[in-house]
Amino acid sequence: EFEYDAPSMKTPVPGPKSKLSPPPHSLFISQNVGAVNFFCNYEESRGNYLVDADGNRMLDLYTQISSVPIGYNHPALMKAITNPNNLTAFVNRPALGILPPENFPEKLIESLLSVAPAGMTRVQTMACGSCSNENAFKAMFIWYKIKERGASGPSAEEMSSCMINQGPGCPDLSILSFMGGFHGRTMGCLATTHSKVIHKLDIPSFDWPIAPFPKLQYPLEQFVRENAQEEARCLEEVEDLIVKWRQKGKPVAGIIVEPIQAEGGDNHASHDFFIKLRNIARKHGCAFHVDEVQTGGGTTGKFWAHEHWGTGDPADIVSFSKKMLTGGYYFKDELQPDKAQYPHLLSRARGLGTFCAIDARDDVTRDNLILKTRDKGVLLGGCGEMSIRFRPSLVFKEYHAHQFLNIFNDVLAEYK
Amino acid sequence: EFEYDAPSMKTPVPGPKSKLSPPPHSLFISQNVGAVNFFCNYEESRGNYLVDADGNRMLDLYTQISSVPIGYNHPALMKAITNPNNLTAFVNRPALGILPPENFPEKLIESLLSVAPAGMTRVQTMACGSCSNENAFKAMFIWYKIKERGASGPSAEEMSSCMINQGPGCPDLSILSFMGGFHGRTMGCLATTHSKVIHKLDIPSFDWPIAPFPKLQYPLEQFVRENAQEEARCLEEVEDLIVKWRQKGKPVAGIIVEPIQAEGGDNHASHDFFIKLRNIARKHGCAFHVDEVQTGGGTTGKFWAHEHWGTGDPADIVSFSKKMLTGGYYFKDELQPDKAQYPHLLSRARGLGTFCAIDARDDVTRDNLILKTRDKGVLLGGCGEMSIRFRPSLVFKEYHAHQFLNIFNDVLAEYK
Repeated sequence: EFEYDAPSMKTPVPGPKSKLSPPPHSLFISQNVGAVNFFCNYEESRGNYLVDADGNRMLDLYTQISSVPIGYNHPALMKAITNPNNLTAFVNRPALGILPPENFPEKLIESLLSVAPAGMTRVQTMACGSCSNENAFKAMFIWYKIKERGASGPSAEEMSSCMINQGPGCPDLSILSFMGGFHGRTMGCLATTHSKVIHKLDIPSFDWPIAPFPKLQYPLEQFVRENAQEEARCLEEVEDLIVKWRQKGKPVAGIIVEPIQAEGGDNHASHDFFIKLRNIARKHGCAFHVDEVQTGGGTTGKFWAHEHWGTGDPADIVSFSKKMLTGGYYFKDELQPDKAQYPHLLSRARGLGTFCAIDARDDVTRDNLILKTRDKGVLLGGCGEMSIRFRPSLVFKEYHAHQFLNIFNDVLAEYK
Repeated sequence: EFEYDAPSMKTPVPGPKSKLSPPPHSLFISQNVGAVNFFCNYEESRGNYLVDADGNRMLDLYTQISSVPIGYNHPALMKAITNPNNLTAFVNRPALGILPPENFPEKLIESLLSVAPAGMTRVQTMACGSCSNENAFKAMFIWYKIKERGASGPSAEEMSSCMINQGPGCPDLSILSFMGGFHGRTMGCLATTHSKVIHKLDIPSFDWPIAPFPKLQYPLEQFVRENAQEEARCLEEVEDLIVKWRQKGKPVAGIIVEPIQAEGGDNHASHDFFIKLRNIARKHGCAFHVDEVQTGGGTTGKFWAHEHWGTGDPADIVSFSKKMLTGGYYFKDELQPDKAQYPHLLSRARGLGTFCAIDARDDVTRDNLILKTRDKGVLLGGCGEMSIRFRPSLVFKEYHAHQFLNIFNDVLAEYK
């Protein structure tokens, strides 16, 4: 057994080595110097036991705010991390968004994508939980605006106003969150966090809607009716807030919720509550973001806490960090804005099955695109004034579509 | 020499392995699928040479957006990172703000603090550049509000309103930034970023002041007068904006600037410009934050680009990431809000030299604190209605002050 047998206390905690003079942590803590509990000896810590600087050995039921998945210094993790093949990213700092490692897709498929939530086949990695939520919010804002604009690109006014933080380019969209929620402390996340004064005080925020989270009475079996009413009340308030914020000109682009509110007090709600909430989001055209940063990774008995809800379509975005040893978020296909490519050349993509068409900028462009695509080995057709039509056979497969898309992408990228 | 001799191209770029069908990067890129240049072979890359998935070997003058300090797979870095003693943080995920490793202060003193900017002896580490800037903004907001409130703690109204994103608890403070600036893409940072439409479009922002950055004419020797006028114009605009935003009820808590605007176009300004800007910040009670995420780490010829300005007091906060292989920010003592401790027991800290005093909540509390502190081995005095006075000898040293503070902190923490 790679572990100690029992706790062993030598001094009160914090012990002498954690009460040094001057206090060493004031060297490296900017905002809350009083939060340091004690200094730790991570080399001696093992499994479920944390050892502090004074040799006190404690059974750890907190694990760095729920971040240590399989205990301290697990041999399998030490082995994985001392394998030079796995260290290249730490040393070489690849900018994953422009120069990804060739084996990155494969590694993701083996690891993060092998545990992807139902309905999701894509994952964006991030350094921490806050960054994951921040970027998930941005994905929802972008998705919402593309939906609103349709196939046309942004207007000249949107493109100039966004550079100076003004609308319409920087729109007044909002994210709906819950009282007691905690989603991180960078400024976007913080606007959806409502846990403790010390997290919020003195930091500018956004005027976004905040719904009440159900306060269940225990034991649950004794308060079935009351709890159902409480949940219904909260869900009704969510809908009212969505309508109110739309009327205020700050429409809700997304709803964020934790399957169990952690920092806010371990507040639970029924599976039914979350399924209904997800449906409210869909009904009102909001994306639904489930924050599994603390609940994810197996701790609730299923890999993701939302699996307990028993639905095949739990969310549009699921964010994670902590036990997953990296941050990031899974997202549904619809949230990837690849439809916005080449808006100056193409618009009005439409179709049913493989009976598809897309408009070019004008008839000359349409004719040129068809010819250049033929030069590269793909036959297309035209119709109407400026449309390109697709009529592949009934034995046309997905890889044929990708062959076409690669070639067509080259044509579009080179077109002047 | 741990390196290749010369570039060696086998295919056009992107080559066949970077143009796979279906495109593998759509699995892991949420917001800008079109940005992937090509897939890389980081294991074969060495020194100044990046090797791609098709075996093309390129002299890399971009280094992952300026993030690779001493080349790919440098033996010294590989050695440091395969040392098990250095891996504990990756496996054990310490929450540094509450349970720091016992050797963390020492490691920081040896590493990050050994290259601290002039006037700074503290550093807060962060996972990336965006998080560093986000938290630096928060440090400036908190510092500004504590300055405003004086020694009294937050009001009941501030504490309740902040929980729901409202003023006064969430104040309308602002950060002044420059057109062409880039400070990251999470929502707070993004409000100070004005580089490209694709970074800004469709993301809600803050109404913060944005100043023009000097557009210098080259060659510099030929346009001395014009450039001096241009810089003076921009500095005047900075002051006008600070005054205007104060009148609007959104006072500027801090100014952020890069020593050379990178993403925005490699825009330079004279040392004189930055020194004057720093003085404008001081004059108007704003903190001054220099973003060295891209310019830091030696690339400009000095460790920090701001060292070229030749002043002993360049900034209040200096943020970093990229080449430093971790994110974070250095900060001046005044930005650490430890004066806010125990506001329910203490207030009105005042003094000159060691002739100091502090008020207790009332006379009974003052008397009790003095007695309890004496029980733990420190003698204090009282004066006035509810004050504690300090009158140490002229051979009283800093470590004596820390001895006292540790004991007094225990008394205050236990006091009911």
